[in-house]
Order: sequence, then C-alpha cells, then structure tokens
Amino acid sequence: MWNDNDMTERLGVRYPIIQAGMAGSTTPQLVATVSEQGGLGTIGAGYFNAEKLEKEIQEVKQLTDKPFGVNLFVPSENHYLPDQVEHMNAWLKPYRRAFNLEEPVVNVTEEIQFKQAIDMIIKYHVPVCCFTFGIPDHETIQKLKEAKVTLIGTATTVDEAIENERAGMDLIVAQGSEAGGHRGSFLNNGKYEPMIGTMSLVPQVVDAVSLPVVAAGGIMDGRGLLASMMLGAQGVQMGTAFLITDESAANDLLKNAILNSKETDTVVTKVFSGKYARGIHNAFIDEMNQYDGEIPDYPIQNQLTNSIRKAAAKDGNPELTHMWSGQSPRLAEKMHAAMIMDKVVSQVEERLKQN
Amino acid sequence: MWNDNDMTERLGVRYPIIQAGMAGSTTPQLVATVSEQGGLGTIGAGYFNAEKLEKEIQEVKQLTDKPFGVNLFVPSENHYLPDQVEHMNAWLKPYRRAFNLEEPVVNVTEEIQFKQAIDMIIKYHVPVCCFTFGIPDHETIQKLKEAKVTLIGTATTVDEAIENERAGMDLIVAQGSEAGGHRGSFLNNGKYEPMIGTMSLVPQVVDAVSLPVVAAGGIMDGRGLLASMMLGAQGVQMGTAFLITDESAANDLLKNAILNSKETDTVVTKVFSGKYARGIHNAFIDEMNQYDGEIPDYPIQNQLTNSIRKAAAKDGNPELTHMWSGQSPRLAEKMHAAMIMDKVVSQVEERLKQN
Repeated sequence: MWNDNDMTERLGVRYPIIQAGMAGSTTPQLVATVSEQGGLGTIGAGYFNAEKLEKEIQEVKQLTDKPFGVNLFVPSENHYLPDQVEHMNAWLKPYRRAFNLEEPVVNVTEEIQFKQAIDMIIKYHVPVCCFTFGIPDHETIQKLKEAKVTLIGTATTVDEAIENERAGMDLIVAQGSEAGGHRGSFLNNGKYEPMIGTMSLVPQVVDAVSLPVVAAGGIMDGRGLLASMMLGAQGVQMGTAFLITDESAANDLLKNAILNSKETDTVVTKVFSGKYARGIHNAFIDEMNQYDGEIPDYPIQNQLTNSIRKAAAKDGNPELTHMWSGQSPRLAEKMHAAMIMDKVVSQVEERLKQN
Repeated sequence: MWNDNDMTERLGVRYPIIQAGMAGSTTPQLVATVSEQGGLGTIGAGYFNAEKLEKEIQEVKQLTDKPFGVNLFVPSENHYLPDQVEHMNAWLKPYRRAFNLEEPVVNVTEEIQFKQAIDMIIKYHVPVCCFTFGIPDHETIQKLKEAKVTLIGTATTVDEAIENERAGMDLIVAQGSEAGGHRGSFLNNGKYEPMIGTMSLVPQVVDAVSLPVVAAGGIMDGRGLLASMMLGAQGVQMGTAFLITDESAANDLLKNAILNSKETDTVVTKVFSGKYARGIHNAFIDEMNQYDGEIPDYPIQNQLTNSIRKAAAKDGNPELTHMWSGQSPRLAEKMHAAMIMDKVVSQVEERLKQN
C-alpha cells in the first residue's frame, strides 16, 4: 500500500509523512530520526542565518543519508512604519521591564538571508526545499530545479495551490485551518486569514491541481493519514505531533501545555510575529488583541516581541510566550520521534488489513 | 462494508448518511427521497409551528415508510432587551424601507413550539429526533425514549459531545467548523464560537465518547464519507450537498450562489439570526458587522431580520439575505437528491474495491 504513491516517489521516501518545518523547534536529531524512519524530516530554517543553516545541514547529513528538507519563509512585502513601531514599543515596555530587557533594533534582513539559504541548499545538495508564506521568484525556482532540489509549496486556499503549481512546485501542502503555528497563506496580503478546514480544503485543492497534494492541519495519527488519503491527498505533513517529541527543540513548558490542552484552547493571532499563527490562548494574546490593526508587519513584530517571548519561556511563564499548537492537542502523545512514525505507520497498516 | 455499523443499525437505514435538518430548506420530497435511497432524511423543523410540522410529517409518511428524522432547535436562554431591540430596529429601518416592510412584533414562543413538536414526534411515531443548539431537559428525553425515538445530539466540541452522551443521546453529530448554516454549539453561551475543524474534531470526539459519532462539516462526496470513517466516525451528515438538490426548498438565488462560490467565500456571522451560522459573505453581513456586540439574542434577531431576508430573496437580491453554505462549495453539483445519494455510495464502493 505504500507503493504507487506520487509523493513518496518524488521525495524518495518510504512513507508519505512530512515532519513540518517548525521554525525554531526542529533539531538535527528530530529531522534525521524522521528521515531514518522513512518519512521526510525538515529543518525549520525560517529564522536561521546562513551559518546556523549550514551547521544544521551538516549535522543532519552526519546523522542520516536519507532525504530530508529545509523549510524556508519566503520574504513578503512589509512596511516599516516608524510611528507604528514606536507605539508597539510603548505597549511592550511593561513586558520588557518585567524581564529587564532592552528595546531591540529592528533589522529586516529577510531577503539576504533567504538568498543565502537557497545557495546553502544547493551547495549541500539538500534533496527537498519547502516554502511557507509565498512562492519564490522565477530565477530562484530555476536555480533550485537545475540543482535537482524537489520543491514543496504551501497553500491555504485553492487559488494559492494553483499559483504554486504554475510556479513549478513539485508538491503542494494544503494547510487546513486546524494547523498549529504560522499560517502559510500569501494571496490575501495579510488583510484577513482564510480559515478553510482540512476536510474542505484537501479535496477542493486535489480537484484543482494535478500535483501531488499533502494534507496538513489537525493530523496526529494513522487515522488522520488514512482520512487524508481518502480525500485524495498522497500523504500528510504533521507539526504538533512532532513538536512534542523528545527530539524537538520546543521547551517543556510548551510540550506540557499541549499535553494538557483541549481542542478549544487555541486561537489564531498576529500579536507574536505580525503574521497569523495558531497557538494556545494566553494573557499576551488577550492583552495585545486590543491593538489589533496596529500590529507591525512580519518580521518587524516578530523582532519586537522576540526577547520577551524567550525570557518568558526561560522563566517558565506560559502567559507571555508563543505556544504554537494545532487543534488536536488531545491526540498528542509525548514519545520519541521514531515511535510517532512507527505508531502512524502501524495504525494505517492495521486498519487496511481489516478491509 | 455497509454492515457492522453502529450508526446504520441504530437508525435502521442502509447507508450511514444523514441529510442535515436544514431549517427552512427541507421539503417532504427531499426527506423522503433521501430515506428511500437508504439514508436518513430529516425534516428541518427549527422554525415550524405544530401545524406545519404535523403537515410535513404526514406528507413524508405518505411518500416513504422508511425511517426519517425531525431536527429541532432546543430553546436556549435569551434576553429581550428593549433598548437593544430599539437600536436594531433603527439600524434595520433602511432595509425595511427599501422593501416596504413593517417593523415586526417580536414574539418568543420557542418553548411552547418545542414542546408541541416533541408531542407531535411521539404522536406520529417519528423514528428519529435530532437536536441543535443544546440538549433538552431530562423529562423530554425520557418521554422520547419511552416512545422509542432514536435521539441524535449535536456537538461542536468534545465537552459538548460528553454532555450529549451523559444526557442519553443515541448518536452524536460532530459538527466541524467547515459546516454551513447554524453552528450547533451550546456550552459557550454564545459568547464566542468554537471553530474546530472536522479533521481535528472527529477523532477527539470519537476518543472521548462511546456513542457512534457522525461527522459533519465540509463533506460533499464519497471522499468525505470515507475520510470520516477513517477518523473513527460511523458516517456523515451532509447539508450543503442536499441544499442544492432539486428537491430542496432553497431558492435558485442560493443554489446558484453556492455553485458559483469559492471555498473562501463564506464567513461565520450572528447578524442574521442572533446565533452563529456560516454563509456566503454579502453586503448585509458587512454592514451589520459594525454592530457586533449589539446583536439581539436568537430568536429575537431572527425575527427582526426575517421579513427583510425573505423580501430580498424574493427580489433576487443575494446581498441582503442569508446564503448558508459550508466551506466546500467547489464540490457542489446540482442534481436530484437520489443522484447525490447514489454518487456518494458508489464512490465509496468503488474506492474500497481498489484496496
């Protein structure tokens, strides 16, 4: 049953399971373990500079010779409005004071970082590159294609999937509204957030494109993988399920919060980074929501809140840091990444034996 | 494959497919056709008085001797605030003027209507009763159970599913965020709306209760039914798919709007009825959204906007009437209800032959 699958064929993996490129929360151990177990591990390089990315790629390559991916944030238009940043700094002052933090210098280097990451991927022959927040320009795509890198785009709507196909992607992740962390949407210009549930999004995307579709959003086990395949997807991308593994870089504060959450505990908010993301509801979201409409664009807001979130997490304070999670925390089980892979695969195999 | 299913067994039907009780949009022909084809047709009696319900039950019984259901709105707490109603009437004045309509007299008779509907269901030995917006009191449930009526509750969260099980329901519809029309939620007191995607909601509900679970939200074809069963549901409830059939009472304005919609065209709003419901975005929603927080409770707002919506629909104006739809309008196909049933069943049978 694992043969005859466009997704595994294009990725050169055994099982149609991608570990989502959760920026800031992947480790070389997590990536390599997932790949060793027959899935596609992915380095979440969204926030990495070139040196950090190079180091991680080297480490993954030491741990596995199986295919793996790098997930990148595609730079998007952003406006640095001095007044807006000044206001935000004023609103963030009490939090900074509580943790004894300086006001940061905003430094938008997305474009340079992205170009360097692409070069690094080519230099090290990384087999797969995944994109979030948009589609890179034609030249970049051509460069990667010439280097035989398999390309995965992210879509939260049918139109975004069509754009990904047009641009030359090899696979499309259809990210439903249940997904944790950042929303990959890009066609709405950040003005509103299309929140299409996975059950609706996947078959509509499958009908609209001819590329293999990977379902994402709310999927934590073999049931989710089977359901996705029935909807016409070739496989799945899972984030939260891997975020709570022992190998993930997420702190115990977040892992425990997910394990103790209900499906109703998450919300989608821009207050942490300037882009919409799903996380467990807390005081920071509540307090900052009053400034809705005045949140600086990504990556400006991300940089403004970064030290506060880090200090809060270090302090064991779940109320002032981002706590990314999808809508299925009740299905979360803390285990080694290899066991998650094993669980999902054996659940699928067992279920299909019954038919 | 259609045997050994708790849902079909409890309902006495051949296929695990429920036609959602879309208040105002079902006809005896639709209900009877779905039941004749082996599913469970449901009279959407949410807005009916006793006479209307009696007539519809009689008509369905003349058309089929197969099991069918009646879907009722469980009366919920509502506050008639004279000032709020006065303000709303002032805001609605321009719309009423445009259609030459009088200001209506608000008349909350929910409780009486609900009791009479229960008596009617028992009198006519209706096999199945489905509830939206809550759980009836113990006495009502006992009365229905003694009359051997099979009871279906609606849940939009795990906690609501648990409450339904405790109260003695026989099956639970897990309504995901993709679903069109009214949200069945009741534990949040209308303050916020839990929007859990079907892919997340179904397995979490299945794990939490021992009753058969019916998936709802975004399901339009055999792929959705198969996916739901893989998630652990016994079957599905479909609304939008049946709303656009020839047998439905929905007007052509709505049917055509659904057929021409994208998955991104719907929003969840309280402005039409005072309770959250998903429909195609239009001018009325936009204009009334500025009064968010000042919308009278259901059924008050429903009565205040009723004549406006009816007049707009009659006038062929899609901008000032409710246009309920789920998030999968791209999967909508206008056909006879019998053909929808046939399509779903044969898609499932074909897919399973492949394994």
